[in-house]
Amino acid sequence: METFFSFLEKRVDDCSSLLCIGLDPHVNDLPAPTAASALDFCLTLVKQTASYAAAFKPNAAFFEVFGADGWNALKDVISAINDESNRLGSRIPIILDAKRGDIASTAEAYAKSVFENLGADCITLNPYLGKDSIEPFIQNPEKGVFLLCKTSNAGSMDLQNLLVLPVGSDSPMPMYNYVAQLAQQWNVNNNIGIVVGATHPQIMSNIRASAPDLWFLSPGVGAQGGELETALRAGLRKDGKGMLIPVSRAISRSADPRKTAAELRDSILEIRERITRAG
Amino acid sequence: METFFSFLEKRVDDCSSLLCIGLDPHVNDLPAPTAASALDFCLTLVKQTASYAAAFKPNAAFFEVFGADGWNALKDVISAINDESNRLGSRIPIILDAKRGDIASTAEAYAKSVFENLGADCITLNPYLGKDSIEPFIQNPEKGVFLLCKTSNAGSMDLQNLLVLPVGSDSPMPMYNYVAQLAQQWNVNNNIGIVVGATHPQIMSNIRASAPDLWFLSPGVGAQGGELETALRAGLRKDGKGMLIPVSRAISRSADPRKTAAELRDSILEIRERITRAG
Repeated sequence: METFFSFLEKRVDDCSSLLCIGLDPHVNDLPAPTAASALDFCLTLVKQTASYAAAFKPNAAFFEVFGADGWNALKDVISAINDESNRLGSRIPIILDAKRGDIASTAEAYAKSVFENLGADCITLNPYLGKDSIEPFIQNPEKGVFLLCKTSNAGSMDLQNLLVLPVGSDSPMPMYNYVAQLAQQWNVNNNIGIVVGATHPQIMSNIRASAPDLWFLSPGVGAQGGELETALRAGLRKDGKGMLIPVSRAISRSADPRKTAAELRDSILEIRERITRAG
Repeated sequence: METFFSFLEKRVDDCSSLLCIGLDPHVNDLPAPTAASALDFCLTLVKQTASYAAAFKPNAAFFEVFGADGWNALKDVISAINDESNRLGSRIPIILDAKRGDIASTAEAYAKSVFENLGADCITLNPYLGKDSIEPFIQNPEKGVFLLCKTSNAGSMDLQNLLVLPVGSDSPMPMYNYVAQLAQQWNVNNNIGIVVGATHPQIMSNIRASAPDLWFLSPGVGAQGGELETALRAGLRKDGKGMLIPVSRAISRSADPRKTAAELRDSILEIRERITRAG
């Protein structure tokens, strides 16, 4: 049976890449503040980088801000990614970065919206509402989710770093470790991963210890090889997979996005080779 | 200076109501699975119930599920509410139930989308990403947020009920109390409230003790007066305000939504009168 993560791993093997290309058509990066301009921006980036993309991650906010036209643009971006997949003969997973989270029939409506109507393969979700808010998104093993665990922003300290005392446990642990453990428990269909920011490598190591098998989506890697190596050492699984590195502006704002994506893909591979050989 | 909650309180006084009419055009409640049908459903409900509405709460998911057309329908619903406000000579706050939560420029894009483009007055937000994810939504005191604190679903146990040990505190407290305290601290512009489900009245009492001044948005009240009374006793502030009671299907599915809304408004008033007289 194909699951979301077996699908992702096939693509990772096909393109020898752990790079996730973020599609963030931020209005400041567009020649005009319109949905048409956002669409152009994304279509160009998709064409330039598809060969190196283990996944694409469009960010819903930068489309929603253009209202109905933005929604249509998002749909067109997803179609364009699927066209590129056909051209390459290797389907590229599409992760909608939307950080949704709601209950019961509302969660069902969001799941229908993202998987059936938009045609994405995966979505980022907020775990604060608990397991029943996740369930409508994970019923189909071919569709996946990344649950927010430890995000890359400074405010992630406010709740995610709190020490918690789970029922039946005798020692406190940081909330992010508890969320990682829940995600690992809930992941019976191989379609749940977690968001773990690369800005906190020590914390990332702790979370990897709590959840040895899960895929991480790890934003926050800079252009510097140093940070990238630190993050990969902290987060990669023993099999040299288990970590998607989303990069958006460092690629889209570069002089040559295709070259930048290729170089990043290669740097990640080279570091991974060094780490797994040493390990 | 007008703030979101001074605006809400003015409306509460104008219509003598704590009722928040939920606009949830669930596909099962529509004659056809289309955005046009969702729009009709909402326009009818708005006309029937505006006189008794302290606020309207459209739920983004039930519009998003219709894609770009749904987005346009949501915009039209918001315009229609503003038209009713003009007719009544008393502006009715519009709370978009969207449970968003993201960082930096992404949060800014969501804030622009909901407040500027859609024209809502308030949004529900998930606090898991911390204060910097809330800030873009609270910079304008006239726009407000309700942060998820203790939601009405069973899964709210998973994280929201965890005992946490805040730094510098010597005793553990439930996460929902910690979130309530943060919200109270952050509420310097009188535009932050919290979502506290009416399905847990004992917990609601605890949260009211943690956050004596905040407005609650309290879903989960049934049609029965008993539950309603228990919830109001647990959650009302000393001034007999501080609690919005969202009701959607119990009104929209009733034989006469106008009459049901009027009766609910009156039941709430009557119970409040009894409670505040006794207190």
